Amino acid sequence: MHVTHADFSAASAVVPSSRLDAFVAANRFDKPTLVLDIDRVEAQYHALAAGLSSADIHYAVKANPARQIIERLVALGSHFDAASRGEIELCLSLGADPAHISFGNTVKRASDIAFAHQAGIDIFAADAEEELEKIAENAPGAQVYIRLIVDASGADWPLTRKFGTSRDKAVRLMNMARDLGLAPVGVSFHVGSQTRKPEMWADTLDQVAAIWAEALDAGHDLSLVNIGGGFPAFYGDEIAHPTDYAAKVMEMVRARFGDTPRVMAEPGRGLVAEAGVIAAEVLLVSRKSDDDLCRWVFLDIGKFSGLAETIDEAIRYQFTTDRDHEDTGPCILAGPSCDSADVLYEKRPVALPVGLKSGDRIVIRNCGAYTSSYSSVGFNGFPPLDVIVI
Amino acid sequence: MHVTHADFSAASAVVPSSRLDAFVAANRFDKPTLVLDIDRVEAQYHALAAGLSSADIHYAVKANPARQIIERLVALGSHFDAASRGEIELCLSLGADPAHISFGNTVKRASDIAFAHQAGIDIFAADAEEELEKIAENAPGAQVYIRLIVDASGADWPLTRKFGTSRDKAVRLMNMARDLGLAPVGVSFHVGSQTRKPEMWADTLDQVAAIWAEALDAGHDLSLVNIGGGFPAFYGDEIAHPTDYAAKVMEMVRARFGDTPRVMAEPGRGLVAEAGVIAAEVLLVSRKSDDDLCRWVFLDIGKFSGLAETIDEAIRYQFTTDRDHEDTGPCILAGPSCDSADVLYEKRPVALPVGLKSGDRIVIRNCGAYTSSYSSVGFNGFPPLDVIVI
Repeated sequence: MHVTHADFSAASAVVPSSRLDAFVAANRFDKPTLVLDIDRVEAQYHALAAGLSSADIHYAVKANPARQIIERLVALGSHFDAASRGEIELCLSLGADPAHISFGNTVKRASDIAFAHQAGIDIFAADAEEELEKIAENAPGAQVYIRLIVDASGADWPLTRKFGTSRDKAVRLMNMARDLGLAPVGVSFHVGSQTRKPEMWADTLDQVAAIWAEALDAGHDLSLVNIGGGFPAFYGDEIAHPTDYAAKVMEMVRARFGDTPRVMAEPGRGLVAEAGVIAAEVLLVSRKSDDDLCRWVFLDIGKFSGLAETIDEAIRYQFTTDRDHEDTGPCILAGPSCDSADVLYEKRPVALPVGLKSGDRIVIRNCGAYTSSYSSVGFNGFPPLDVIVI
Repeated sequence: MHVTHADFSAASAVVPSSRLDAFVAANRFDKPTLVLDIDRVEAQYHALAAGLSSADIHYAVKANPARQIIERLVALGSHFDAASRGEIELCLSLGADPAHISFGNTVKRASDIAFAHQAGIDIFAADAEEELEKIAENAPGAQVYIRLIVDASGADWPLTRKFGTSRDKAVRLMNMARDLGLAPVGVSFHVGSQTRKPEMWADTLDQVAAIWAEALDAGHDLSLVNIGGGFPAFYGDEIAHPTDYAAKVMEMVRARFGDTPRVMAEPGRGLVAEAGVIAAEVLLVSRKSDDDLCRWVFLDIGKFSGLAETIDEAIRYQFTTDRDHEDTGPCILAGPSCDSADVLYEKRPVALPVGLKSGDRIVIRNCGAYTSSYSSVGFNGFPPLDVIVI
């Protein structure tokens, strides 16, 4: 395999995993396979932790719930952010301390709140009256933090208004939490997935600090700033080293909120994305018409078997092949399912070697986050993305 | 449960399943559950078969691969269209005759073609040179039909150019197939998912007939027209009775291709969608701001746990609740995952009862197709969509 380390090492945050490339080169795969380098996860954890310093890392389990990742992070002392009862059960089963797990989904089933409370989890996210009522009823006295809507930063994937409450309601929700016997300890927000530069946090932090000040004025003794995720992974555009990035973010946080509050950070993508590659295969290369400028390249993996983040071409993965010494030409990339929506990149075609053909291996870089867990149970009869941890 | 049969029976194609409503009303579900009425599938099969008359029905397994559906259709004499080796294995394991299975994915792994050939499957789709080479090598002498790109019809979900070849290459591909020792027996196309009126087929059939005539002129003794899918299900807009719809389509087909060619039809959605409902639950109702016109309603099922066809708000499901006697107001509908993309309907809000609240049951109508198989293996720790067949 022609491994083009040189193309990536300059910009990639930490050293790319030569273990991954060696493993992929030495093996054949009869179906698309995510290969995860667990030591690369550990290296990234240390790199982030060095920059986040006094903050607690709550790994966003949804990014990749592989058991080996959770186990390793438990051993390293990481905390966890869980989106569901299923993720809580997973973390607990692998030795996580319930006091180190936050239930960060603002949309929770009442019975799942009760389960979490009984399991010893004491901190919950909320952004609405009805959610506070459910928490008060099923986890009486629990700590809650209020998730805030913030204006879009310059993130590659700005978030919708799905999560959070507007500024006009934030303090009222804290009041309500207090009246319900809960402990409104702080606020949370999300700067946007894949926020590539630390400076992009400044405006968002200003917005949050303004609400924080309002809450203090209203008599709330806040002690927690949950800065969420947004820590970037390398997908081709240069990003800072994770330690530098995290340190700059923390500097901006401390400048606004002081040294006293506890800070939680929830890296997911930024912690595990670069620890995985997908070994895939080209199934077909074709042109639809003599006039076509682009070839169509069909892979054995698509939107419904692991590459869901290509929806709207949001995340642009990088590819390596055994033909990377050849000239390249523009390709529309598509998945293997009989589904016309299963097209990965069409608006912005991908440059791939001119000689690419059916049966060729293609390696998709930095796929450790948001791939395997998105995979469908068997759409079109294709099995879920296989995962191998090395 | 307040079952609003009256709202649906007028426009729905065949009588709605009172068995489904009775079963849902009589049971509690602790997670989102697709309930399928297998007798409703059989009724729809008979209704379609009556209209399709001389055509062979190849059920598009990808629409819903539930074992009980395949078993029932095998018993009824249906044929099957498979998208993958996995679907072929499923059909064979449930008693389907390999001579009744077409391998209709134009993008196939070489080893899967060989597997299908050895299993006795003798008809394959293709739309490209490299695919023909793979078929010739792994299924020598097999029948192939050339998938054509057709201009968009008025379908609710027109297809992309992902599948098919342009007119300029169609006959050349048939020539190549013949030269490779294959039997180029015909053509296939797809009129577009959810083509609500039979008249919408006319223009597409004209395009295909023009290529058919070119192929006959070039000396190809074509004997198969595969008209694909596109048979609609009821999602709120009136559709014709399936027998009438299918009969009108067949009349148009025979008018263009004569009485001699074998006709294959591949209904998926049109065969099983109306045989299923999803019993779901409201997790949270909230307003983000005092100024919001719409409430946000969060369900325990979303884009990544079964409702993938809400991407781009393409398929608009209908909902019933126990509060359908109340006034309604506009709602943005979202799924339960911590994923900002997991919003079902926002551009066109959904009217739901004003009193809707956390814990309420919500039934999603006509969900028998393209739901359970799209479900992720466990995104955010939520289990795949449960399926119960009654």
